[in-house]
Amino acid sequence: MTKPLIVVDPQPRGLTEIFDPALWRRLETLGELAAHDGPGRMPAERFEALLPEMALLIGQSDMPGERLARAQKLRAIINVETNFLQNVDYDVCFERGVHVLAPSSAFARPVAEMTLGLLIDLCRGITTADRAMRRGDEKWLLDGAAGCFSLYGARVGLIGFGDLARAFVPLVRPFGCTVKAYDPWVSAHFMEGFGVEAASLDEILAESQAIVVFASVTSENQGFLGKREFDRVTPGAVMLLMSRAGVVDFPEFLRAIEDGKFRAATDVFPVEPAPPDDPARRVEALVLSPHRAGAMTDSLLEIGRQTVADAELILRGLPPLSCRRAQRETVARSRSKPIERS
Amino acid sequence: MTKPLIVVDPQPRGLTEIFDPALWRRLETLGELAAHDGPGRMPAERFEALLPEMALLIGQSDMPGERLARAQKLRAIINVETNFLQNVDYDVCFERGVHVLAPSSAFARPVAEMTLGLLIDLCRGITTADRAMRRGDEKWLLDGAAGCFSLYGARVGLIGFGDLARAFVPLVRPFGCTVKAYDPWVSAHFMEGFGVEAASLDEILAESQAIVVFASVTSENQGFLGKREFDRVTPGAVMLLMSRAGVVDFPEFLRAIEDGKFRAATDVFPVEPAPPDDPARRVEALVLSPHRAGAMTDSLLEIGRQTVADAELILRGLPPLSCRRAQRETVARSRSKPIERS
Amino acid sequence: MTKPLIVVDPQPRGLTEIFDPALWRRLETLGELAAHDGPGRMPAERFEALLPEMALLIGQSDMPGERLARAQKLRAIINVETNFLQNVDYDVCFERGVHVLAPSSAFARPVAEMTLGLLIDLCRGITTADRAMRRGDEKWLLDGAAGCFSLYGARVGLIGFGDLARAFVPLVRPFGCTVKAYDPWVSAHFMEGFGVEAASLDEILAESQAIVVFASVTSENQGFLGKREFDRVTPGAVMLLMSRAGVVDFPEFLRAIEDGKFRAATDVFPVEPAPPDDPARRVEALVLSPHRAGAMTDSLLEIGRQTVADAELILRGLPPLSCRRAQRETVARSRSKPIERS
Amino acid sequence: MTKPLIVVDPQPRGLTEIFDPALWRRLETLGELAAHDGPGRMPAERFEALLPEMALLIGQSDMPGERLARAQKLRAIINVETNFLQNVDYDVCFERGVHVLAPSSAFARPVAEMTLGLLIDLCRGITTADRAMRRGDEKWLLDGAAGCFSLYGARVGLIGFGDLARAFVPLVRPFGCTVKAYDPWVSAHFMEGFGVEAASLDEILAESQAIVVFASVTSENQGFLGKREFDRVTPGAVMLLMSRAGVVDFPEFLRAIEDGKFRAATDVFPVEPAPPDDPARRVEALVLSPHRAGAMTDSLLEIGRQTVADAELILRGLPPLSCRRAQRETVARSRSKPIERS
Repeated sequence: MTKPLIVVDPQPRGLTEIFDPALWRRLETLGELAAHDGPGRMPAERFEALLPEMALLIGQSDMPGERLARAQKLRAIINVETNFLQNVDYDVCFERGVHVLAPSSAFARPVAEMTLGLLIDLCRGITTADRAMRRGDEKWLLDGAAGCFSLYGARVGLIGFGDLARAFVPLVRPFGCTVKAYDPWVSAHFMEGFGVEAASLDEILAESQAIVVFASVTSENQGFLGKREFDRVTPGAVMLLMSRAGVVDFPEFLRAIEDGKFRAATDVFPVEPAPPDDPARRVEALVLSPHRAGAMTDSLLEIGRQTVADAELILRGLPPLSCRRAQRETVARSRSKPIERS
Repeated sequence: MTKPLIVVDPQPRGLTEIFDPALWRRLETLGELAAHDGPGRMPAERFEALLPEMALLIGQSDMPGERLARAQKLRAIINVETNFLQNVDYDVCFERGVHVLAPSSAFARPVAEMTLGLLIDLCRGITTADRAMRRGDEKWLLDGAAGCFSLYGARVGLIGFGDLARAFVPLVRPFGCTVKAYDPWVSAHFMEGFGVEAASLDEILAESQAIVVFASVTSENQGFLGKREFDRVTPGAVMLLMSRAGVVDFPEFLRAIEDGKFRAATDVFPVEPAPPDDPARRVEALVLSPHRAGAMTDSLLEIGRQTVADAELILRGLPPLSCRRAQRETVARSRSKPIERS
Repeated sequence: MTKPLIVVDPQPRGLTEIFDPALWRRLETLGELAAHDGPGRMPAERFEALLPEMALLIGQSDMPGERLARAQKLRAIINVETNFLQNVDYDVCFERGVHVLAPSSAFARPVAEMTLGLLIDLCRGITTADRAMRRGDEKWLLDGAAGCFSLYGARVGLIGFGDLARAFVPLVRPFGCTVKAYDPWVSAHFMEGFGVEAASLDEILAESQAIVVFASVTSENQGFLGKREFDRVTPGAVMLLMSRAGVVDFPEFLRAIEDGKFRAATDVFPVEPAPPDDPARRVEALVLSPHRAGAMTDSLLEIGRQTVADAELILRGLPPLSCRRAQRETVARSRSKPIERS
Repeated sequence: MTKPLIVVDPQPRGLTEIFDPALWRRLETLGELAAHDGPGRMPAERFEALLPEMALLIGQSDMPGERLARAQKLRAIINVETNFLQNVDYDVCFERGVHVLAPSSAFARPVAEMTLGLLIDLCRGITTADRAMRRGDEKWLLDGAAGCFSLYGARVGLIGFGDLARAFVPLVRPFGCTVKAYDPWVSAHFMEGFGVEAASLDEILAESQAIVVFASVTSENQGFLGKREFDRVTPGAVMLLMSRAGVVDFPEFLRAIEDGKFRAATDVFPVEPAPPDDPARRVEALVLSPHRAGAMTDSLLEIGRQTVADAELILRGLPPLSCRRAQRETVARSRSKPIERS
């Protein structure tokens, strides 16, 4: 009996970025490996030749209907970049039961951690006090606490309730925060299981002391946070933009901060890397993070760990458990772009 | 039957800083109030005249033996500045059963919160990335993660295991950290009750990825963290100085950071406010916080809440529960100085 | 535009058992309801007539290929009995994207609670001490602690890591237990996310002080816990059978308990109701629970809540979140029988 | 320099019950040991001869003023039986700063665990269902749930908020219970630190679904729970008596249970061992526990661990941390009797 063929075409990830030697050895025990370690994608000719025997595809490679038709042994596509692009014939995959997976929760813990760090920073003014001390105009003791508030017992509102939000919620539990969330794709019942109360967008904006935007970009929500929404934010609140810049009207976001409507932090920018003259760089009440929230060496290895864990289950005839599955109902609406390599 | 006399001489705190109207009304129900609302201390003449009837003293007033001898009805001194000074004849208090109390845990939660914020900042490089983005030489994505590590699963070492440490420990629990602590005044058995393992100072220094100094200053530990100790810190670690600058050799502390031995944050400085030319202000790998960790409006009200809660118990003939008690064994060794008003 | 047709054929559940008036009103807002409230199933003639317009089927009704072929508008089957039977053409459902769902986690919390109650009972001998006191031969104080152990810090081993196990694990966290689990369908990576370590069956048996059987019956595991396995259990351990009697060799289970190999509790029996002369009724070291672990009025309403929450999402064109989905890989192997009405 | 003299007179505890070999070796390093290992107390002649050099007394020995006057080197009395009796001149101890300590929290965790076990038993009817199955008149599935309720989200009321209550509260946290407490010796502020709301006795009785009595006996509260209080309990509630029988009017307690006012469990009895014809033995809705809640081998060793941990601190000139201190205000009111050896 031949071993199943596992094709590994991981760009824009690097092979050794996501698989350390121990993980790679585990993968080798699962099947015959055909791997391409960049730069760029596996050459089309080689890729096409592998289609007939391909049992697993690890990568974000194009898989239109024609290719799927030739890949009759294919059981799963594991997209290690983690954003679902419109380069796969998902309908065919769903019909045939080919899992399309993304180990996207790999970023959930580092993003949650960074979110809490930025949140306490905004509540307590850590970065602005550091800047002031370097300039020499800092305020000491209670004089420096104007506008600050404690996270203990604060009202936290989440916009988006996916992997990032679910990893974040346990981190604020010891502070005794009330947590509400708005997500049109998630039921109140499901949120309750995490101790979170469902709310409308307007409630989140108007009632929260801390607003965290975790929503990813879909065909429906581009720029859905604009002037109207920022005007509703309660005075003195803080806002964190942790997912994709595309969900906010960025110029209005900066204007609202400069107008003193709220203090903010952002990990994402409309263009990345942000140009040298990006006005965001000069906004005092904005903590700037150059898309680093999920960017940890270990996040990439976690992609590898989820990939290998689910590959093992799938090749044993079992359903995957660690990766997120593309869903028939929503995959066509995904608009998050892959991360570009610098 | 006359109501007990409660003398309130709260300097350097202000009366309305620590008691909001509701708290003040509760205090009024407990006894006859004789209050001085600054500036400075209650005039000696007035204070002395109140001694014979004084049942509770709320303040950091001098109470030498002569005054105590005249205050035969005194049941407790509640020091609302919260540092025990050598201006009270503690032996007489202990003999007579006059409680000497400090609502010092009022600062524990805001300091714990700030500590976690600074800790994530150091682990993930939040403030330094913000500074870099303002200068225009930031690094994006994984390129910006060099030297960073995640708090999840990290080895955290505490130096000092008092109120601050006990408030801090629950906040890192969701990160699954291993927490060890060094405190020569605390038994391993007591630490275990908080899920913390006792360790020697050298173990803490050599094995921790994150070292948090919570130790207050005593007659025994001034400057106990110096070059020898900093040399033992594991490369890549981070260190947070959250209690009093007096416990470290500050010039050596700055030198170790500049030499790249560790990244650090400090909330305290040898002289406060720090002079404009304080070299600390220019150390890149040091996050600067101008003694703001405990300085929140609510911390002061919490002083009032603990004071009133324990005043009620004491005047009902019961032992206090919220304030920290001066201890016969250790009070004479306390060397933490009161906070100066700017 | 016509409202979608929702067919409700809930047997063996009763309509008002699973839907309280508020839930029923929410369901009414979602579509046109065609409901049958027993006894037994909706008459075939009526059911068949509804097929062409049926958008949702709430029930455990037979849905062979012929019926599915006529139900072209069907989007989901929500099996409110919660065990997947072999009376649905699952392949057709998977191909067409008809969700087959079971709100089975409705039982997870009451079962987890009962499991913890029975576990502490076994650790500390609650039921046996009560029986002894009624007989008059009880032992007092430490004399009654022979063979008992504390759950604090105990080694807990789970057999099966599905909904029940995941609801149970948080309940033992405050006891500081080490939790390991054996489940051939679940990866070590997935378990780690719950703070649980994967282990082999033999490790679980040999090393645990408390063994909890949560495994449901499949085509592969009937009677997989027999004499060989019971012989491996560490002396003095306790075992809880919480899922289905079919996974153990029941006569050997009773024999092992009577031989003093371990103390045990069971919520399930090979025949239910157990016959009056069932030998299990006389085993002293066995705590007997007549299939009551999940049986709470609120569990049934929770079935209704999950059903309505997911019905809303599905009819809005979104994927369900609360119910468990039948999986292509495993649904054919399910052998758990429905609960019989008494 | 001579080593301090440690006198160990542990009755009614046995020496090896509270000190395992490792603990005993640690104690030996701390000083010169003079130990009596029963039966009974150390002979008075020997005890008296040791007074002048005694630095620590480990035991419940009589220490009237005359003996204290001769024990000028004494620094602490550690009462390893754990109930403060009126056989010590406490005033002299307080004046001189001789700590009088009891490692009473040694029982807190086993009692908390047993309390949770009995509480779930009462909520879900575990013991009564087991009894029914042995009689052959059990009810299956939902039919057996009449009168049961889930602990998830239940309103729990505590009477007494000492060590036992504080160990118990974390165990019900995963159930999301609301916890209120009544304790006239404890402030609302102190309870809040544990996430518990202070309430009056009548509120606790009337509003709780589960009432747990943790109050120890004082000169003020003997029999304070009687007919008037039981009449206030909300129908369908459960009550657990976990501390001392002396705080309830026991015949009324049994009558209330038999009248169906509430279901209950008790670990304590007016006379222990309870006589063979004690009517409590026949009350169906009462779970009987022959004073076993704290009675675990490890509780006694925990007494030893707390003793040695605090002995080390005290002999190093530091305040004790693990044992409970006798308080000037309350020690004279303690009326809990020592446990009698069977």
